[in-house]
Amino acid sequence: MPTKKEITQGSLEKIKPHLAQVESSIVDQAKAFDPAVEGYIRYLLDTGGKRIRPSLAILAGGAVAGEPTEDHRQLGLILELIHIATLVHDDIMDGALMRRQIPTASAKWGQSLAVLLGDALFAHALQLTSEYPDRAISKLITQASKDVCTGEIIQTQRRFDLNLTKAEYLRIIELKTGALFAAATEVAARLSSDNLETAANLRAYGLKLGTAYQIYDDSLDLLGDENDVGKTLGTDLEKGKLTLPVIYLMEAATESQKTKLNKLIINREPLDTSILAGIADYEGAIERSLREARTLLQEAADGLLGLPDNDYREGLIEISRYVQTLVDACQLSSY
Amino acid sequence: MPTKKEITQGSLEKIKPHLAQVESSIVDQAKAFDPAVEGYIRYLLDTGGKRIRPSLAILAGGAVAGEPTEDHRQLGLILELIHIATLVHDDIMDGALMRRQIPTASAKWGQSLAVLLGDALFAHALQLTSEYPDRAISKLITQASKDVCTGEIIQTQRRFDLNLTKAEYLRIIELKTGALFAAATEVAARLSSDNLETAANLRAYGLKLGTAYQIYDDSLDLLGDENDVGKTLGTDLEKGKLTLPVIYLMEAATESQKTKLNKLIINREPLDTSILAGIADYEGAIERSLREARTLLQEAADGLLGLPDNDYREGLIEISRYVQTLVDACQLSSY
Repeated sequence: MPTKKEITQGSLEKIKPHLAQVESSIVDQAKAFDPAVEGYIRYLLDTGGKRIRPSLAILAGGAVAGEPTEDHRQLGLILELIHIATLVHDDIMDGALMRRQIPTASAKWGQSLAVLLGDALFAHALQLTSEYPDRAISKLITQASKDVCTGEIIQTQRRFDLNLTKAEYLRIIELKTGALFAAATEVAARLSSDNLETAANLRAYGLKLGTAYQIYDDSLDLLGDENDVGKTLGTDLEKGKLTLPVIYLMEAATESQKTKLNKLIINREPLDTSILAGIADYEGAIERSLREARTLLQEAADGLLGLPDNDYREGLIEISRYVQTLVDACQLSSY
Repeated sequence: MPTKKEITQGSLEKIKPHLAQVESSIVDQAKAFDPAVEGYIRYLLDTGGKRIRPSLAILAGGAVAGEPTEDHRQLGLILELIHIATLVHDDIMDGALMRRQIPTASAKWGQSLAVLLGDALFAHALQLTSEYPDRAISKLITQASKDVCTGEIIQTQRRFDLNLTKAEYLRIIELKTGALFAAATEVAARLSSDNLETAANLRAYGLKLGTAYQIYDDSLDLLGDENDVGKTLGTDLEKGKLTLPVIYLMEAATESQKTKLNKLIINREPLDTSILAGIADYEGAIERSLREARTLLQEAADGLLGLPDNDYREGLIEISRYVQTLVDACQLSSY
């Protein structure tokens, strides 16, 4: 199974200089904090990541404007800062010790500092957002941040609830992951064009891509190999987060199978994820989930066909193809 | 000792209808959240509080514009939402079970939901902030939120550090508490007038009032009676937060006394706050702290004398006098 590494193929090469600029402005943000805080923030900002949201903002900007501009890079910066802030808080809630092969803020400095550092980073990102002269732009970004929180709140609320439906699951991940992806592509379009249809198409692309990516990521948590991924896996189910394969499994289960799943998931002491993954695979629930992701990725790419054909539109299509290859490679690590 | 109750005296009566409007718009904000989240947010918003920040925004607005307007009430709303979001996160970090005589969010729903609810409320407040057409206004508000986080981060960082100086302590509480008070009065002025000197004077008032209030609040934590205050006391020192009386005590201590303080505070098992309070009182460190608060309150009020004399300016002066009465009443609960 491929590791989650940076996307570097084909026409995506073209955005590398833009991404390098975003990367350097991400790390530069530490200077905007008090000297007593700067070092912590630098640690959080300098830990890498795939920078998917900046890539999407730059590509969507280039797709609409012909070439990406400083506006699109700034959007990518802001969304990545919001994303990092949410990761800092996620790691507290998940009790995660490692992310991207290095210790999380909460593992390194404790929960209190991690709460505050996430807050400070979030406040800073929203301060940058307040600099847009067009209030509609800042409203879209702040709404996306609110959506991320809402998705996570509903997810937390529905932990260990085996009645969670597929529709409810999809809504949670649309809010939690789709919202920032959609903001990247929609706002990039809005920054360069008044064409609301183009913006809506790009929003739909981002939302579908984000949703498909989260389905893949959730499946990986059930199936994957920690050494490849660089973070603690199998934690979703232990924390009661029900993912699409499990929902499909529940849907198709007989009453006696439901009782068994209930025992495995709710009364786990401890839960052996590999058994559940084996059953989900055997019953075809994993394949169904991955098919759902593939459909979304296809729809995302198809929705871009109305845009003028240029390298950046092609880059967006390549990203959906890249996630497709991740999905295709997703299988039980024991195979 | 008087309880921390609502300020209702004198010319402050005049802002009651404005405060009632803010109160109802605070509770109304719950409707701006997803139905799955609304109930939690309503719980957080409906728990009362002194609404000092809205009072300051309304009074400063009236002092500058002659009468408070919707703009000033909206500012009060936004700052109160930011304040409530920080309290939700504070309670997680402090492990506080009760606030204003009712269970905290983290006690009621656990730490994860409390982190997310604070984030969602914060995102919502900053979304309202992004609606200001004047970017300078939104920047002042987002900067104040960042300052609150910065103050709390430095405070957390310097826990159990007996070398904390008075200057460092003052900077922490200026950021942590002063910033939102100062934003209330400064931004209210900026919303109604281009006179930057007036805005600066009102900012200075807010900053001094906030700082004095925090000194009072910190002293109360050392001295107070939980039944009167409605929240868990004595937690500052247990959590290693050094307050002004302790800093003064350290400053004046001989080497052997420093060793004793060190033992009491750092190696406490458990710390008997009343002993430390007794020593601080005996040595005059509490009186010195309260004197510092009084000086700041006097300076805050004096700084307003350049403003036109009206009921709202008078209201601001009354607030500083009210805090003065709280400071005057602050003494060991055993007396």
